[in-house]
Amino acid sequence: MRIALDVMGSDDCPAPDVEGAVLAAREYGDTILLVGEQARIQAELGKHNTSELDLIVKHASEFVTMTDKPGVVGKAKPNSSMHVGMNLVRDGEADAFVTAGNTGAALSIATLFTLRRIPGVKRPALTAIIRIRGNSVIVLDVGANADSRADWLAQFALMGKVYANSALGLANPRVGVLSNGEEEGKGSQLVQDATALLRAADINFIGNVEPKELLRGGADVVVCDGFVGNILLKSLEGGTSMLVDALRDELMKGVLTKVGALLSRPAFRRVRQEIDPFEVGGAPLLGVNGVVIIGHGRSNAKAIKNAIGQARKAVEGGVIESIRTGITDATDADEPASL
Amino acid sequence: MRIALDVMGSDDCPAPDVEGAVLAAREYGDTILLVGEQARIQAELGKHNTSELDLIVKHASEFVTMTDKPGVVGKAKPNSSMHVGMNLVRDGEADAFVTAGNTGAALSIATLFTLRRIPGVKRPALTAIIRIRGNSVIVLDVGANADSRADWLAQFALMGKVYANSALGLANPRVGVLSNGEEEGKGSQLVQDATALLRAADINFIGNVEPKELLRGGADVVVCDGFVGNILLKSLEGGTSMLVDALRDELMKGVLTKVGALLSRPAFRRVRQEIDPFEVGGAPLLGVNGVVIIGHGRSNAKAIKNAIGQARKAVEGGVIESIRTGITDATDADEPASL
Repeated sequence: MRIALDVMGSDDCPAPDVEGAVLAAREYGDTILLVGEQARIQAELGKHNTSELDLIVKHASEFVTMTDKPGVVGKAKPNSSMHVGMNLVRDGEADAFVTAGNTGAALSIATLFTLRRIPGVKRPALTAIIRIRGNSVIVLDVGANADSRADWLAQFALMGKVYANSALGLANPRVGVLSNGEEEGKGSQLVQDATALLRAADINFIGNVEPKELLRGGADVVVCDGFVGNILLKSLEGGTSMLVDALRDELMKGVLTKVGALLSRPAFRRVRQEIDPFEVGGAPLLGVNGVVIIGHGRSNAKAIKNAIGQARKAVEGGVIESIRTGITDATDADEPASL
Repeated sequence: MRIALDVMGSDDCPAPDVEGAVLAAREYGDTILLVGEQARIQAELGKHNTSELDLIVKHASEFVTMTDKPGVVGKAKPNSSMHVGMNLVRDGEADAFVTAGNTGAALSIATLFTLRRIPGVKRPALTAIIRIRGNSVIVLDVGANADSRADWLAQFALMGKVYANSALGLANPRVGVLSNGEEEGKGSQLVQDATALLRAADINFIGNVEPKELLRGGADVVVCDGFVGNILLKSLEGGTSMLVDALRDELMKGVLTKVGALLSRPAFRRVRQEIDPFEVGGAPLLGVNGVVIIGHGRSNAKAIKNAIGQARKAVEGGVIESIRTGITDATDADEPASL
């Protein structure tokens, strides 16, 4: 398998990105195409033992920064490492593209400039895999579409189902719609309208899912508007890291609690691993015509390696082909049969 | 001051509700009107030393349960303790009403059956006070209006400002709009439309606020659609309690970590207090024609007492009168001057 990696993605690029590529090539035996400024990549590669690893450098003269405007950068930097990397996928030279860069830019460049949408897909969705205490929940959209329509949510459900098949190995994932109450009829107009479409879709629809139920693993796939999904994700991240900070500060205030903290450390470490976003790797951008995984900007080498692992899983699972088929079938079912 | 309390509100009612009333009467010296089934209230009161406390029993033959449908119960149970208690406020026999009961029912009964809206208020808003590490943030709407309009959000901002004056003692609170990005232009169409109105309003508007910024105390009042606000609140609650559960489980797995947990206990206790929802008491329902505080269903006696404390603060701060004035001024400013 050949995976293209944007080495100019992470906040501390290119060091963690290149190291992640080295780790991935070593662990998976795949070919990794490192996309970015040639000289800088080679300087980084010089720091690692890369003998017998299949690493190819693909030069890109520009790169997207975290402050670049997603609506502008696609046109303004046509030779960015994101453009070059995604074009490798579009042209069949790579099977997937991974970046820890600017999410909005990756979305816009993928959708409007290189890969474009899978035919029939109304809107690509940014997809998070939330891992909590052994449960994994796929949530989409978490930020690509701040104002989603009910029929988009129905497509998100189909794409989420396909992704749950390949990423979580679930044949018949439970699909819910994020709402502010469990009972049917609770929720915004969008939730009501989407519910009608989700009932009719070829999925195992379980109705409304509240955040608490989601965290308990009460659903495998949860669909929502991109604005709400983003608020959900950021509230979970913000709330838990706030709590951890508060605990750390309080533990350091006394001698006994300091000793207690020392003794408790293994438990803290296990919990951190249980809810570590880097364990999963990244968020797939579902609905574009190629596998694209977007990692966290704060990614370290391990996170980059895991994002590459996630990309190869999506390729192996035939996610793009399955979405294509699923969307076509759903569209056919919508149309009246012609004689 | 005279405060009416729904003793049939909390999940374990009437015991914690009645005890909370006793604690409040003792601490604040106020008159508490206990609304509910007379015989049960008197049986509960018999368990406490109530000499020299100003406690009055107001009989109500029905009560709202947590499973009653908000859209139905207002008409179906016209003699509920919520109806009776709110009517006491409407008729001037009490200064405020407190309940730990069904939020949707309280909202519907207040708005449609007893207190009704303050003239000019388009929609009442359920208002949460999120307390994090010494910072308090007022968030509204957190559940009354699952599909809010931009002009409602602008009114929420005015009501939130007034409430921040009285509840937090802030003369010029920073008001933000909840969004999925800090930069102007980020967010749903509702956020964009509301931003235009919020800029023109008589408030200290600071623009978009992300969940993380909210948790850092970067705003004093944050307005949002009731659906999104509810998801925010439930994600924060769910995420933090999930983390606490995970830590507890992991700490109990080993002998050393158990000892560590024991030594760390004071730090945990302080953190719990720092983010304890019961420390605040309840959520005011802003925009109805009287002070209504809705406590958590899981309220214990201390939480009920604190909710009563919150109600008296709102009465002392003249919240209703200030909202009335603020809304009238804003409406006048909207209308063209007539000669």
